[in-house]
Amino acid sequence: MKRLSFKSPSKIVFMVMDGLGGLPHPQSGKTELEAAKKPNLDLVAEESVCGLIDLISPGITPGSTPGHLSLFGYDPIKYDVRRGITEALGIDLKITKNDVAARGNFCTVDERGFVTDRRAGRISTEENAKLCQLLRQITLPGVEILVTPVKEHRFSLILRGDGLSPDITASDPQQTGVAPRKIEAMTPGAKKTARLVNSFVQQTERLLKNSSPANMVLLRGFSQCPEIPSMPEIYKLTPAAIAVYPMYRGLALLLGMELLPAGNTITDELESLRRHYKDYDFFFIHFKNTDSRGEDGDYEAKVRAIEEVDRALPQLLALEPDVLIVTGDHSTPATLGIHTWHPVPFMLRSKWCRRDKVSTFTEEACLAGGLGRFPATEIMPLAMANALKLEKFGA
Amino acid sequence: MKRLSFKSPSKIVFMVMDGLGGLPHPQSGKTELEAAKKPNLDLVAEESVCGLIDLISPGITPGSTPGHLSLFGYDPIKYDVRRGITEALGIDLKITKNDVAARGNFCTVDERGFVTDRRAGRISTEENAKLCQLLRQITLPGVEILVTPVKEHRFSLILRGDGLSPDITASDPQQTGVAPRKIEAMTPGAKKTARLVNSFVQQTERLLKNSSPANMVLLRGFSQCPEIPSMPEIYKLTPAAIAVYPMYRGLALLLGMELLPAGNTITDELESLRRHYKDYDFFFIHFKNTDSRGEDGDYEAKVRAIEEVDRALPQLLALEPDVLIVTGDHSTPATLGIHTWHPVPFMLRSKWCRRDKVSTFTEEACLAGGLGRFPATEIMPLAMANALKLEKFGA
Repeated sequence: MKRLSFKSPSKIVFMVMDGLGGLPHPQSGKTELEAAKKPNLDLVAEESVCGLIDLISPGITPGSTPGHLSLFGYDPIKYDVRRGITEALGIDLKITKNDVAARGNFCTVDERGFVTDRRAGRISTEENAKLCQLLRQITLPGVEILVTPVKEHRFSLILRGDGLSPDITASDPQQTGVAPRKIEAMTPGAKKTARLVNSFVQQTERLLKNSSPANMVLLRGFSQCPEIPSMPEIYKLTPAAIAVYPMYRGLALLLGMELLPAGNTITDELESLRRHYKDYDFFFIHFKNTDSRGEDGDYEAKVRAIEEVDRALPQLLALEPDVLIVTGDHSTPATLGIHTWHPVPFMLRSKWCRRDKVSTFTEEACLAGGLGRFPATEIMPLAMANALKLEKFGA
Repeated sequence: MKRLSFKSPSKIVFMVMDGLGGLPHPQSGKTELEAAKKPNLDLVAEESVCGLIDLISPGITPGSTPGHLSLFGYDPIKYDVRRGITEALGIDLKITKNDVAARGNFCTVDERGFVTDRRAGRISTEENAKLCQLLRQITLPGVEILVTPVKEHRFSLILRGDGLSPDITASDPQQTGVAPRKIEAMTPGAKKTARLVNSFVQQTERLLKNSSPANMVLLRGFSQCPEIPSMPEIYKLTPAAIAVYPMYRGLALLLGMELLPAGNTITDELESLRRHYKDYDFFFIHFKNTDSRGEDGDYEAKVRAIEEVDRALPQLLALEPDVLIVTGDHSTPATLGIHTWHPVPFMLRSKWCRRDKVSTFTEEACLAGGLGRFPATEIMPLAMANALKLEKFGA
């Protein structure tokens, strides 16, 4: 892709309706997409080439991070962005290449130092913020330390400096009645990092001694960002992201997108798109509610979330993007209330897309689409091709 | 899969109708599946997600071993279970990791030692058994020798001991009028094994000198079992196999399944399933007749074999497995009378399968199924997902 892509004025709008795919309702036999009234989405389907995407591979349920990596053309198995990193991305922290990130819990230990509550009674986020402030006194030689509250008892720890390694064990024993574990290096190159993190834990212990119930911390999920080529580098795009939720904003940053204001609703997001339309050639628009309502197990609310997007769509269509993509990062059927492995409806509209016969945007209709069932990592090459931003391969 | 799978009470029944796929009859234009009356299979299809599977890759005709390896999620190119091993598995021999197995022929040599008949006039299996008894006198230092009759002139040789290597040449010259070849090491590490096997051949020669026509042996297909992770290890399943034919039982053992009694008919097999249903969470049921009748070139008999399964099916459906899969390990069209490369109908029924419009279990109908055409190695992830036995991938 790096070799074939080139810069051009055409514009790609990539709309992700999170958790879009569904399953039939037990009574009506209709999926959420089949039940929704969505004349605008159906109109786009009629003018599109459609298909069903597998984000990871058949049967594998994608987490949000690997799901989105796949949508943007990154092999989600190769680019392993783990929990320490996603926790940090989730609160809008910037991660740089050599940072080591971990997930932290404030916890309670007894006078012997044994863990009695791994979550310190779920202290309030405000209390958490105060304790994080306290921990900012900690110093380690040659390392910048970022301690940031997440929610309740959870915080993010980032170590920034040279020669750090994520290959160290967790201090979290994942059970009560035992002491937090000493952190060990799993590779020889990680010895320095283990020593530093153990020193961080010791200093924490002293600082929190009297702040019961949150009188200790547990650390786990040490991870580093994989070296990941940016979208401007691969695709020669000037990409922007419009997303309300921090995790998606963080991931977009990581891939080299600029963040645009998103407001709170899909209408706000599309208004932001309109305002910045001339400044970028690729727009990732993330809509969360389809997933959230699916995870609530609220079938009707998920149907309404789809209809909400449909009503706002004319705002987007008025901009007449050269390539418009609508799809999801995984299925979240309201009947199950969790992310699932089911392939996700996909449509791509462009002047050159070679339309198929699909005239409604549903799971079943998309299966018969011109793209059939295909891996999501093929979307970006298709988007680039339809935007006429790719050279031919070979002579 | 190893990282994502977990144990749960849900049950998977995986029925393999050997050689299931077919081709149209020259007169009727119908495949065996299209001609068969099979209301129960069609009912399952209606409640399933369907597709067509490629066992190896398009155009490649699977042998039974790679076909089944692929069904159970093993890359059949990577896990190279060769003839010496399958011959042994085929007569229910247990193979352990360091064994070297070979296929043996009793043959006839003339007074100069030149092969005159590679099959010794296809001596009877009884005669074969007597000669194998004779060969059990042979000793080799540090090696246990298992000589077991297979059928007519064929026997299985297994060498069991430390430091054996399968990387040695065959003694079988694959032609008459020449002497059996001396066995050579193909790698330095195989020298000891070559020396031992040549000693085995020399001792054989002395023992068989006067037992014309079977007065010599030819050896080929030296092989070792690949180190193959077991199904309990990969999928955290407690799997059982119900199969009449030895080869399939042997392969099931190799993959870590327990063997259950199978009787002689599909009804016996399904009765065994019912009796042991509570003790396992995965059942491989193998039905051979579809393949055997296809290989006979008997179109009508293959149709009847399909109908035989259909009639017995209610026994299985009464158990209400959480996931039911029906498919085959390759096609055996009666019009050709051999295994072929044609993709094989597949259906998977579960509460969460996202049904498609397929309402009859045939090659053509399955092509339009929700799974489309897909590699058989994706079946196990789909089975596990539908049994809700897989964590999601990434956060």
